[in-house]
Amino acid sequence: MIEAETALAKLRAISKTSAFNEWLGLEVTAASEGSAELQLVWRSEFEQYSGFLHAGLIGALIDTACGFAAATIAVGVLASHYSVNCFRPPVAKIFIAQGKILKLGKRQTFCRAEVYGDVVKDERLLASGETILITGP
Amino acid sequence: MIEAETALAKLRAISKTSAFNEWLGLEVTAASEGSAELQLVWRSEFEQYSGFLHAGLIGALIDTACGFAAATIAVGVLASHYSVNCFRPPVAKIFIAQGKILKLGKRQTFCRAEVYGDVVKDERLLASGETILITGP
Amino acid sequence: MIEAETALAKLRAISKTSAFNEWLGLEVTAASEGSAELQLVWRSEFEQYSGFLHAGLIGALIDTACGFAAATIAVGVLASHYSVNCFRPPVAKIFIAQGKILKLGKRQTFCRAEVYGDVVKDERLLASGETILITGP
Amino acid sequence: MIEAETALAKLRAISKTSAFNEWLGLEVTAASEGSAELQLVWRSEFEQYSGFLHAGLIGALIDTACGFAAATIAVGVLASHYSVNCFRPPVAKIFIAQGKILKLGKRQTFCRAEVYGDVVKDERLLASGETILITGP
Repeated sequence: MIEAETALAKLRAISKTSAFNEWLGLEVTAASEGSAELQLVWRSEFEQYSGFLHAGLIGALIDTACGFAAATIAVGVLASHYSVNCFRPPVAKIFIAQGKILKLGKRQTFCRAEVYGDVVKDERLLASGETILITGP
Repeated sequence: MIEAETALAKLRAISKTSAFNEWLGLEVTAASEGSAELQLVWRSEFEQYSGFLHAGLIGALIDTACGFAAATIAVGVLASHYSVNCFRPPVAKIFIAQGKILKLGKRQTFCRAEVYGDVVKDERLLASGETILITGP
Repeated sequence: MIEAETALAKLRAISKTSAFNEWLGLEVTAASEGSAELQLVWRSEFEQYSGFLHAGLIGALIDTACGFAAATIAVGVLASHYSVNCFRPPVAKIFIAQGKILKLGKRQTFCRAEVYGDVVKDERLLASGETILITGP
Repeated sequence: MIEAETALAKLRAISKTSAFNEWLGLEVTAASEGSAELQLVWRSEFEQYSGFLHAGLIGALIDTACGFAAATIAVGVLASHYSVNCFRPPVAKIFIAQGKILKLGKRQTFCRAEVYGDVVKDERLLASGETILITGP
């Protein structure tokens, strides 16, 4: 069993090694065995052409929340596939992404993430997605 | 029939309205009816934790190449789903994304994009993906 | 609010109009507003080459559970995309598929389904998947 | 280099070991290194509720065409994920599925398939899909 504080410290250390996560200002706000939560504070630099959060950044949140959820347990985590569902216009002051493992495998791990706007409730579920990660030594 | 120069000018104008595309330095390098090509010049700010192009940015390239391919013909283009396959470590000086329409529909348009590293050839195919766009008035 | 019994009767009537569902012996075992449950009793005719349930039939369960969940509320339901994750070897006497709506939209509805072997618990989660349905008049 | 006739004989032998493929009457009509073609002759038993080919059977065609394309080269092929795009009402006398490898990997192989109605041409492209297969010893 991995302690939440250990998992959180580990993910924050990983996130700091990614220049793009640093540019985003992505913050790891929670972690436990098999799950992770991220927060992204809105900046106008993130806009696509309608003024919404760029779909690539929704993907970045989903891919990262999934990868971090896997990294709390698995080693050698590398995304090989991810998908993104866009449910509502991605407009918020803070985007919250929650990732969790669906199935931990020897060779592949499946994760799922949800992206909320400002608060974690159904009416503010903006997007969801899934990631398949190659895991293992 | 839409002329290639008209399509290219239209997509470049759309891209300029996206603050995130501008930050990326994303350039629309070709367009014709139902297809579009983008280029992204590598900067170290784009790194994930292994020094590769961040998977979110691969998604941004795929989503944008697909959306731009659709926008050469369709109106009211809005991505509702996209997926990303990661084939090879995304390392290159220039990333080239080519998007095209698979099926133009009244209510939904399906597009597909490929991301190459430096040159457009099979051995440098880094990623592919598909996008479902809501289209129509 | 749709009553569970009304929803169940409606889905059973729809299922009977599908010759393939009838051949499968697919049974609608539960339904409520936005969700549906199916059961499929194993027969050796369903085998792929390793003796497991054929992946196409896992897809049939997911697509149908999602479509039926949507049909409890939406009109004009037509699947435009679905995906299937295979977690464990699909071996069971009874396959149970539970579908629910993730996001009901005017033009598109997103659903998700899980397929269990014999009992609905994490260790017997065999597969999951998502479906995008065109909905509306 | 694998000869086309050897690949075809190998795939036909595999297909015969699947009771469900036999019930479908699925025929392997072509194969070469990294690609495979299947044909399915329409029967009314395949209907979903509108009289179209059941979406699960579109998935079965895509999953099988992809798996067979991989099996011409790779060993230990097992589908872990597949997706299906539905472009047009799946109505035809003969459904033709063509699968090919997108990327052959040590641990994962990505394939893609297209399903046509009666003839292989753009206007009769009914569906497409992708499959991720675990491969390797």
